Amino acid sequence: MPAPNPGTSQQVRIALGDRSYDIAIGTGLLSQPAAWEGLPRAAAALIVTNTTVGPLYAAQLRAALVPHYRQVHEAVLPDGEAHKDWQTLNQVFDALLSHGCDRKTVVFALGGGVVGDMAGFAAASYMRGIPFVQVPTTLLAQVDSSVGGKTAINHPLGKNMIGAFYQPARVVCDLDTLATLPERELAAGLAEVIKYGPIADMAFLGWIEANIDALLRRDAAALAHAVRRSCEIKAYVVGQDEREAGLRAILNFGHTFGHAIEAGLGFGEWLHGEAVGCGMVMALQLSRRLGLVDAAFADRVTRLVAKAGLPTRGPDLGADRYLELMRVDKKSEAGEIRFVVIESPGRAGVRGAPDDLVRQVLADCTR
Amino acid sequence: MPAPNPGTSQQVRIALGDRSYDIAIGTGLLSQPAAWEGLPRAAAALIVTNTTVGPLYAAQLRAALVPHYRQVHEAVLPDGEAHKDWQTLNQVFDALLSHGCDRKTVVFALGGGVVGDMAGFAAASYMRGIPFVQVPTTLLAQVDSSVGGKTAINHPLGKNMIGAFYQPARVVCDLDTLATLPERELAAGLAEVIKYGPIADMAFLGWIEANIDALLRRDAAALAHAVRRSCEIKAYVVGQDEREAGLRAILNFGHTFGHAIEAGLGFGEWLHGEAVGCGMVMALQLSRRLGLVDAAFADRVTRLVAKAGLPTRGPDLGADRYLELMRVDKKSEAGEIRFVVIESPGRAGVRGAPDDLVRQVLADCTR
Repeated sequence: MPAPNPGTSQQVRIALGDRSYDIAIGTGLLSQPAAWEGLPRAAAALIVTNTTVGPLYAAQLRAALVPHYRQVHEAVLPDGEAHKDWQTLNQVFDALLSHGCDRKTVVFALGGGVVGDMAGFAAASYMRGIPFVQVPTTLLAQVDSSVGGKTAINHPLGKNMIGAFYQPARVVCDLDTLATLPERELAAGLAEVIKYGPIADMAFLGWIEANIDALLRRDAAALAHAVRRSCEIKAYVVGQDEREAGLRAILNFGHTFGHAIEAGLGFGEWLHGEAVGCGMVMALQLSRRLGLVDAAFADRVTRLVAKAGLPTRGPDLGADRYLELMRVDKKSEAGEIRFVVIESPGRAGVRGAPDDLVRQVLADCTR
Repeated sequence: MPAPNPGTSQQVRIALGDRSYDIAIGTGLLSQPAAWEGLPRAAAALIVTNTTVGPLYAAQLRAALVPHYRQVHEAVLPDGEAHKDWQTLNQVFDALLSHGCDRKTVVFALGGGVVGDMAGFAAASYMRGIPFVQVPTTLLAQVDSSVGGKTAINHPLGKNMIGAFYQPARVVCDLDTLATLPERELAAGLAEVIKYGPIADMAFLGWIEANIDALLRRDAAALAHAVRRSCEIKAYVVGQDEREAGLRAILNFGHTFGHAIEAGLGFGEWLHGEAVGCGMVMALQLSRRLGLVDAAFADRVTRLVAKAGLPTRGPDLGADRYLELMRVDKKSEAGEIRFVVIESPGRAGVRGAPDDLVRQVLADCTR
């Protein structure tokens, strides 16, 4: 992993050859003209947002974009993971086509992970690909989903099953937008922040433990550091393995169990970050039962997950249902579930596990 | 353009770095084991075909694949451009998910352009991309749509509006499948063969004129040459410009007018190749009115289009409707329609044209 960036620079670079781009992290960015300069030139821009975020920030973003684009259109989607489907995606296509948007049009994804996923996949697919910019307004999106080019929608039979690897032209993380984030969503974002510790950076895990109270009260400096360090680690991993042929899978720590929780309860019942928080606890218990980490380490991370306000026990779907749901995970191969486990504190890997071990973990970690 | 391949070799290479692949052209390929060796290894394959082609060739392909894949599944779609929509695409996702297909699963597109477009876009999007092989069974698909990685579905407001650039792992053109092609579809395929003459290779245009009768009676040697030379030219163009930033647009000769005809009449009323044949006549008349080619050249190509059994006059949609439909073409920029014109015999370019000139062309070339 790269050393933490010690300076005050608020740019993190994703190095992917001709698909490279910067993540800008700071305050007041939405209204800062420099944040919107140097993007692909076009006659039109489309802001994709949702019914919650739009009323708060769309006018500000529009004002920032009007000097750059002759027309700035908007598509306002219903809020929530339950709407991350084809029907809602089609609202973006309808907006692009009804405004006569050409293949130079730039899409701005203003919102959380769901908006970013849908606006990104729409941009990837419209006329086989038009430029897009991520403007994440949730902690989860700023530290994880807006970075790295994964876009997708859900299918009734599985989460994020239909999508594309499609990199944005830029990511703009305005920390001010975190001020309006509901507490539950802040906690959900912290799950993805905590994730980077056990998989990649034990010093960062220590820092999060020392600063969890500051993060929960939205201390600006603490949030800035958490977002930047998370993006640095993600940038490093994605730069090594853009299309998840290997290393990148470690970013899915907690996600195999987590996706099963989300799908089992119905998407939207738990927030994605909540399911990941609980999924990390399960994956830690699995790592412990595989003899990779000791109970003290698993307990340490579990305490931090709890302190962040996240669930540490999963819903009782029944072990059979969990296993069935996990078998359709994208990491599965020929029916074998592939789990991201902690090989040793600060280092993750991907491996299979005997069903009976997984059943023990589920017995331990569900209500 | 490259010189024609003088040998008997039936391989044409698409050179795109780590996305390079071969087009195999020949007879008896469906049942030739060598045609199916060396593809990505996987536990499962999915044959995507339609209700017309499936009964003719799916069993043969399945038999060829069974030695390589533990499971060979099938998704049989309704036939026709009218079904190139999200709903039908979703049948492919349903098949993949209901069979528990993982991200190594290989998709085989067995059919014409519509099957190739849908199976290709499904492969591009399923779990953000799984391998696929084009097995085109129509002349049009063998000489054009199966090569080059363009995949898409239609939107009610425009043709091929939602899709991806996604290269296959291989293209297998078994000329035997052309024996069962309806006459109307053979003619439609010839439109795309003829296209390569005026845009790139006047010697090939002369060859087509000399061999049009042999092509129409499905002479095997003539078809083999037509497919190979078409693929060579397409391979060269796509190798220069995979994502249609420039040169590749010349392959859309006849397609701007053609798409308007298809959309105006409702997709499926005219075959795509029929619309392209007529669209080429219109684009030639536009080139003539722009002073680029003389009437003799336009008439020469028009005669060949007619001889192939293709329409040379468009439906009377009204010039306003034609213009409106062409403005949403993917080549349009900021509302200006971009036409592929013949700059001089054997060389094409992309340019705008005054509306009144286009109206004159439409008055000349519609019933």
